[in-house]
Amino acid sequence: MQPEPARIGAPLEEIDTPALVVDLDAFDRNISKMAAFAASVGVAVRPHAKTHKCPAIARRQMAHGAVGLCAQKVGEAEAMVAGGIRDVLVTNEVVDSRKLKRLAALAQGATIGLCFDSAETVELAGRAAGELGVEFGALVEIEVGMGRCGVEPGRPARDLARRIADTPNLRFRGLQAYHGGAQHLPDHAERERAIAAACDRVRATLDALAEDGLSCEIIGGAGTGTFRLEATSGLYTELQVGSYIFMDTEYARIGGADGGPFAEFEHSLFVLASVMSMPAPGRAILDAGLKSYSVEKGLPWVHGLRDVVLDGVSDEHGKLTLGEAAKPLRLGAKVPLIPSHCDPTVNLHDWFVGIRGGMVDEIWPITGRGASS
Amino acid sequence: MQPEPARIGAPLEEIDTPALVVDLDAFDRNISKMAAFAASVGVAVRPHAKTHKCPAIARRQMAHGAVGLCAQKVGEAEAMVAGGIRDVLVTNEVVDSRKLKRLAALAQGATIGLCFDSAETVELAGRAAGELGVEFGALVEIEVGMGRCGVEPGRPARDLARRIADTPNLRFRGLQAYHGGAQHLPDHAERERAIAAACDRVRATLDALAEDGLSCEIIGGAGTGTFRLEATSGLYTELQVGSYIFMDTEYARIGGADGGPFAEFEHSLFVLASVMSMPAPGRAILDAGLKSYSVEKGLPWVHGLRDVVLDGVSDEHGKLTLGEAAKPLRLGAKVPLIPSHCDPTVNLHDWFVGIRGGMVDEIWPITGRGASS
Repeated sequence: MQPEPARIGAPLEEIDTPALVVDLDAFDRNISKMAAFAASVGVAVRPHAKTHKCPAIARRQMAHGAVGLCAQKVGEAEAMVAGGIRDVLVTNEVVDSRKLKRLAALAQGATIGLCFDSAETVELAGRAAGELGVEFGALVEIEVGMGRCGVEPGRPARDLARRIADTPNLRFRGLQAYHGGAQHLPDHAERERAIAAACDRVRATLDALAEDGLSCEIIGGAGTGTFRLEATSGLYTELQVGSYIFMDTEYARIGGADGGPFAEFEHSLFVLASVMSMPAPGRAILDAGLKSYSVEKGLPWVHGLRDVVLDGVSDEHGKLTLGEAAKPLRLGAKVPLIPSHCDPTVNLHDWFVGIRGGMVDEIWPITGRGASS
Repeated sequence: MQPEPARIGAPLEEIDTPALVVDLDAFDRNISKMAAFAASVGVAVRPHAKTHKCPAIARRQMAHGAVGLCAQKVGEAEAMVAGGIRDVLVTNEVVDSRKLKRLAALAQGATIGLCFDSAETVELAGRAAGELGVEFGALVEIEVGMGRCGVEPGRPARDLARRIADTPNLRFRGLQAYHGGAQHLPDHAERERAIAAACDRVRATLDALAEDGLSCEIIGGAGTGTFRLEATSGLYTELQVGSYIFMDTEYARIGGADGGPFAEFEHSLFVLASVMSMPAPGRAILDAGLKSYSVEKGLPWVHGLRDVVLDGVSDEHGKLTLGEAAKPLRLGAKVPLIPSHCDPTVNLHDWFVGIRGGMVDEIWPITGRGASS
């Protein structure tokens, strides 16, 4: 791990850059808003650790009523359990027997679930759980429109659920029905149609399961772009939202339900950079490039500086262009950037630096950083 | 750090995925080829640690005659010195006084250089070096066409060099004249023109320096896409090449001097992934997405599998499409991917797994991973 980029109590200007900075007030409002909404409609929140990879944040989400955490990888689940989270659902298939063994070890001290889309893996998982005398919660992942993993809804899903139900050390708990492809559809109406189609697939599966006497205590899915739709569908029981705590420009660019921009949540995550060169009028170079923020969804936005845009990036540099209305910058000036895609940006850093009132208030290690296995 | 993904002596099939894998035979040939070429034309190689961030690789490069390493960040320089490298040039400006203090601490046990493009930083660096009673080698970075950092060639560069020469605890050693923008120009002729223009700027600066009695022991620059041009220019003394040890698809897509594809070096770096889902005919899902390889320069290429392409990626998944000529894959099958951009891909991992004859032969920690400060 890299050294901590700041000390608690220091002003923002003293943070060693590049650093990942969280506006704690905005962050807390985001968590509270999701928790209040979910409570109001009677669904559970099981926030996704793939976004933050940080037990300190997970504990905060639990304190706001989350029923547990999601993880995408076994390594993330390990980081969460090591950080005190006692209920983790791996929202993904795990096919490797050594990974399944690691998951079984976690299940000795925590409630652990995972997803399935093949009979072969059911077999492997049952064996791994049996060897340590533990139980895995098991969801059947159904294909709801994103064309990634998942079995077809209806009978194929029912057949797999039956196999799980008949496998010792696995407990069939329900369906994984996440539509990742819907989250960033630009228009709200498109997202509505996509989630309506996903709901049809869930319903068809529930019907098939009922024929076989199988019922679901969990129907999981939803992301920050569609959570209200799944939550009010009458079907989904758990919202697996991740990005809502931070927001990013990819979400800021989609449309909201009212036709304006999507503004459910506030930007609370920033990559703090410093001006390291002022080589020409109208140009300033930052000390943070694509090893400090991911750019596959676009360049980050400059936060709080008028008429200044980041319009070039290389591995360790960002290029700012200052327009006529921009105030001059100085060498060493701190510039906050709003990442275009929060999850892979977080995965580049070892620490969150939490800011309140311009001062460093909290420093959280990102213990799941790099936990891709 | 994440746990080691393999043990020495294990077969490739037992590597925990996603993992960063190095074909050691190809890697060694790449290092030897660059070393032999540089020796044949009488220029030095100072390989860039920004590519590998790994002292074990740096030591291998030193054993092949490198005169020292480059680093882009103070944190990378720290990782190199901690790993036994005694001569490190930071090919970048360092404007923060705490970072300069860290660099001065390194200079107590190693030869440390850095670059300048402003008088203000000369002042700060001299003070930091003076406080610890050490000396920094100092290069003036000149703008040679990439529009990033650097002062204008000729008199502005000369003025800054003079200021450095007159500053206690700094030693003027020469010019940084790296043209990053030239490295991936598609046609060899374009790269020739770009480096010829850079050379004109170096010459103009040397003339201005000579008027003031200043001479250069180092003129540094060049990358994997242009190294032969700088090396044979009669001007450059040190090649700051990085990617040549690994190659990537971004380099594989540019043109070579002979009109064919650029084939100076072999692909030695792979992200090893596993098939985790086979949800539909012709589709296989890998357990490695954009948290395991950077995609801003395109999706990785599938290595060694006929008629199989990676044509979709999300944070933790890669989607393979199998054509008619593809052999069927099975769950758990290992699939090597060639990254599109090696440097930021390496920065996502904690370990290199070196392979020889299909077996794990070496495991190297990437101690500079995340060292962006």
